[in-house]
Amino acid sequence: MATIKDIADKLGVAISTVSKGLNGASDISDEMRQMVLDAAVELGYSSKRARKQFTQKVCIFLEDMDYESIEQFSYDIILGFKSCAANHNFEVTVITGRPDFKKAEKYDTYMLRQGFCGAFLLGFTYESDWMKELYNTHIPTVLLDHTIQNNEYISTVSTDCLEGIDLAVKHLVELGHKKIALLNGSYNRLVAKQRYDAFVSSMHKYELLVDNNLIRYGFFKSICAKEYVSDFIKNGASAIICGNDLIAYGVIKEVERLGLRVPKDISVIGFDDIPLATIITPSLTTVRQERKDLGKCAFQLLDNHLHNIAINKVLLQGKFIARSSTAPFASDNLY
Amino acid sequence: MATIKDIADKLGVAISTVSKGLNGASDISDEMRQMVLDAAVELGYSSKRARKQFTQKVCIFLEDMDYESIEQFSYDIILGFKSCAANHNFEVTVITGRPDFKKAEKYDTYMLRQGFCGAFLLGFTYESDWMKELYNTHIPTVLLDHTIQNNEYISTVSTDCLEGIDLAVKHLVELGHKKIALLNGSYNRLVAKQRYDAFVSSMHKYELLVDNNLIRYGFFKSICAKEYVSDFIKNGASAIICGNDLIAYGVIKEVERLGLRVPKDISVIGFDDIPLATIITPSLTTVRQERKDLGKCAFQLLDNHLHNIAINKVLLQGKFIARSSTAPFASDNLY
Repeated sequence: MATIKDIADKLGVAISTVSKGLNGASDISDEMRQMVLDAAVELGYSSKRARKQFTQKVCIFLEDMDYESIEQFSYDIILGFKSCAANHNFEVTVITGRPDFKKAEKYDTYMLRQGFCGAFLLGFTYESDWMKELYNTHIPTVLLDHTIQNNEYISTVSTDCLEGIDLAVKHLVELGHKKIALLNGSYNRLVAKQRYDAFVSSMHKYELLVDNNLIRYGFFKSICAKEYVSDFIKNGASAIICGNDLIAYGVIKEVERLGLRVPKDISVIGFDDIPLATIITPSLTTVRQERKDLGKCAFQLLDNHLHNIAINKVLLQGKFIARSSTAPFASDNLY
Repeated sequence: MATIKDIADKLGVAISTVSKGLNGASDISDEMRQMVLDAAVELGYSSKRARKQFTQKVCIFLEDMDYESIEQFSYDIILGFKSCAANHNFEVTVITGRPDFKKAEKYDTYMLRQGFCGAFLLGFTYESDWMKELYNTHIPTVLLDHTIQNNEYISTVSTDCLEGIDLAVKHLVELGHKKIALLNGSYNRLVAKQRYDAFVSSMHKYELLVDNNLIRYGFFKSICAKEYVSDFIKNGASAIICGNDLIAYGVIKEVERLGLRVPKDISVIGFDDIPLATIITPSLTTVRQERKDLGKCAFQLLDNHLHNIAINKVLLQGKFIARSSTAPFASDNLY
């Protein structure tokens, strides 16, 4: 692995200049500092440096996700990550939105300059420019619900939706439902694609018809329910599985707006078990994601990377929780 | 969770009797001890007890696998598990073959009696009676390359063969091979099924024909090559991907016995990268499993369980290693 001397040789400058550039000293030019950082990244010096520090710094990037209050999906994930990081003497910085580095410099250079030895990313989509940055990164990076193949520095942490969705479908089948709809999250999120696959696989398992009129991608917010629920009902759905709890909440409101009742006429199942699920009426049947554990595992993945154990993927168990938004299929349903 | 008093109440005996039964005291009858242990398991007392001990005991069960010498697949796995366990002050017992408990008592009762708070299982097949025992166990149990759905006490550790096999197929495609055969491991191992799926998915990705005459399940030893290689060659295969390195070694010997050369006439790829892979001539192109890391992750899974973090699955990265058993497709191949 590259040394400071390698960087100095490459640039034809003194070792002391490289050291100044890496340590943010003020008596070299910004231009020289950038050259030093770029050369360090190019030579693969970044991860070595990050591993050597006593108190190690990692960061969490969130895009399109809130985390400040306990009602929000990411809150417990961040909490779990931070608690585990604190136990291991790591300092955690949370960065929301899209930092400027994307335009100005490479991801690896940014991380090196900030002294971050690893990152945990939440809420990014397929199309995000960030994802392209990550194909070749040498910075240990953990993605929630997203995968990048063939880069040993990237790991994924996720809840096993195959098992979770299967338990949801099984529950509805046991209640006598046959026409089950799926109102999924955003098409550009890998996790929505996985929940679709899990749904189709589970419907086949229970020998139920997969009706394309009963499957739609929305997005991960309540408001998307308005557009799809009436069509689902017209097409005979007696139960709707949702991409997350927020969508399920929107579905319940929309079913009621259409003059029907949850769960008597339409059963509704969410995903996540955020605090909202127990507050609303009827309380929501859902698949629980253990969010603190997702955060803890994300940190463990980074820690493993820093000890040279390259893990592709960690899948947590999803727990099915039956509450009041599901009921036996009633043959006198309106449609 | 159940207490000693609950067990005493259930059996209508004194708390001191239950304590004697759980602690292996000699002044109660074998019959009473068995009743105490059975009741403890039934009431879910087992995991609580195991978690309370200062030096915790875990065990490794191996079926149909050797591990005593460094050439063997399991050697480094056990080593990785033990090193990680020692760091966490756990005592590890390795148990080979099929212990008697299967006939005499339940898995959970056996574990409770021995004071094991968790186990790591290697080498078991679908049909093994053990697998049935595990559907409802309350003992944290990690399986190598095997999955049991819907039991939160069971976790799986494995190498991501989707990525590994894809890199193997890609390598052959880049060398100009089109007729690629798969000589897989045993049909009754989940990991062989997964490698089959990965192979088919990757062949589709590179738009190659999946020819059922070029796909066979053997078993995970060299000797199975004899039966299939000549048919593969008759059916036009110019490259053979194998379920593990032992099979690949058998394939190389069989190709040579048929008067052909590896890699000039037939390219061969293994899986695992056991020490054999670098000793044989030609040295073997293969997909490396980081076996020490598999063992370390298996221990981490148990440790997470004991801290109430239920992980379904950990997938490690497989590293493709090109050596001398693969070469460009030669149009003057014999068949």
